[in-house]
Parts: sequence; structure tokens; C-alpha cells
Amino acid sequence: MATKKEKTLTDLFEDGLKDIYYAEKKILAALPKMAKATQTEELAAAFEKHREETEQQVERLEQVFETFDQKAKGKKCPGIDGIIEEGQEIMKEFRGMPALDAGLLAAAQAVEHYEITRYGTLIAWAEKIGLRDAVPLLKENLEEEKSTDRALTELAETAVNQYAEAAE
Amino acid sequence: MATKKEKTLTDLFEDGLKDIYYAEKKILAALPKMAKATQTEELAAAFEKHREETEQQVERLEQVFETFDQKAKGKKCPGIDGIIEEGQEIMKEFRGMPALDAGLLAAAQAVEHYEITRYGTLIAWAEKIGLRDAVPLLKENLEEEKSTDRALTELAETAVNQYAEAAE
Repeated sequence: MATKKEKTLTDLFEDGLKDIYYAEKKILAALPKMAKATQTEELAAAFEKHREETEQQVERLEQVFETFDQKAKGKKCPGIDGIIEEGQEIMKEFRGMPALDAGLLAAAQAVEHYEITRYGTLIAWAEKIGLRDAVPLLKENLEEEKSTDRALTELAETAVNQYAEAAE
Repeated sequence: MATKKEKTLTDLFEDGLKDIYYAEKKILAALPKMAKATQTEELAAAFEKHREETEQQVERLEQVFETFDQKAKGKKCPGIDGIIEEGQEIMKEFRGMPALDAGLLAAAQAVEHYEITRYGTLIAWAEKIGLRDAVPLLKENLEEEKSTDRALTELAETAVNQYAEAAE
């Protein structure tokens, strides 16, 4: 592992890791509320499945902290706070409305894309600073987020079609 | 175009359009500051190129509003506010530090991913509610964001390598 001097790529990596750790925990808290708000069992089940995955992702991040002998610690991350706030606005403004599920899906996909970009960056930095044990753990999280995003895209198509049929 | 009743997919679309319009204008204001903060001409040039593209994207969004006879209007979007705030933190914390460009690139890619997910959703909704004139304009913006993200990924690899060489 690189030694610290000034602000290095290692600092960027550690900041980013704390940021995504905070984000995953925030998402873990948001998902049950989103599952409860949905109008279809399919979407509720998808959110519940992703909640379980997110629990494991948090554990993997704790293992990443362990690879350089640090205790897992979050750092307030305004990006995910804002994205989750937008999801909460949708839940409030579209409660009981036919377009709610389409809105919830869009909110969830914004969350996934945030995570995908952050994991992509963290992996590139971890490889460069030689954190070999961290890379596979981060890659596992990244692959799960990508797979969730694909599943949400499929559900979004169904939700939008069902909405259109109901509105006819 | 669908008529309004309760909160429909059209409402979701209009909300989302105001959200991305606000986001693009916010990005337009942030890019010159990011370009000024960079340590390499390549990255400054990439940010400047994207600023020019963003100007055109704002104009395209104004045309989308015109397709349903509305005046372009933004709606505060906590997601992009948070993502840009994170970029500003990087600029402050890593000013003059060797890892700054890698951090700036990560911030810019988070912005691109936010836009990519929002445009993807808006296009799906516009197709469903039959806003045919809006779709090609939104698709043009989406393609530019994707292409910017790819260019940033390449620059990120170079930046991280240059950083590693400088740190040796």
C-alpha cells in the first residue's frame, strides 16, 4: 500500500470508500420504505432482494476497510443524500397515483448509477495503489449494482406499459 | 399528448424535464470552475468542450419544452446539487495536490452518470406518452453524455497513470 504524503490517490480512495459506505447504509435504510410504497408485488420483491444484497455489500465494504487495517467509517455524501431526497419527493407527490411505480423505479435507477460510477472509480484507484485484496470485493459489489440496474430497467418497461394500459 | 388527470406519467415527465434542465444549468456554471482547477491542459480542454456541449443541451431542452407549449423552467434537483457539492469538496481538499485531477474526473463522471440515468428514463416516458418530437432531442443529449463519460474514462486512466509516475 502506498505511504501517505500530502493528499494522494490513497486519500482519494479512502475518502471514496467512506463515501460509498455511507451511501450503502443510507440506501439500506431507504429500501424498505420504497418497497412499502410500491403498487406491485414485483417491484416490492425487487426492492427487498436488493435490500438483502445491500446488506452483503456493506459487509464487503467492511472487509475492504480491514484490508488496510481501518475500522469501517462513513463520510457524509451529499450526492446520495440528494438522490434519495428526490426519491422521497416522488413517494410523497405521487402517493396513490398510477405513475408512482414508474417514478420509484427512476429514483432507484439513479441510485444504482451513482453506485456504479463510484465503484468503477474505486476499483481503478485500488488497482493503481495496489490494494489487491480490495479489488475483488469492490468488483462483486459493482456487478451486483449493474445487475440490479438491468433488472430495474426491465421492471420499468413493464411498469410503464401497465400504467399506459390502466390509463386507457 | 396525454391529458392531465391526477398525477400521471406526463406529470412525472414534466417534473423530470424541469429537474434535468435545472441540472444542466448548474453543470454549465460548474464546468468553468472545474476547468480552471485542473492540472493538465487535456482535462481543462475536455471540460471546456463539455461546457460547449452543455450549452447546446440546454437549448435542446428548451426545444423539448416548446414541443408541448411550455416555457422552459427548472426545478431544484437535490441529486445534482449534492453531486456538484462533492466535486467542490474535492477541489477544496485536493487543491494543488497530485491526486486532484483523478478526483475531478471522478466528480465529473458522477455528474455524467446522473444525467445518463435521467435521460434514459425521460426518453422511455416520452415514447410512452407519445411526445415524438421530444424523443430525438433527448436522445441527442443522452448520446453526448455517454460519449463524454467514455472520454472521461480514458482521461481518468491517463491521469491515474501520470499520478503514479509522478509519485514514484
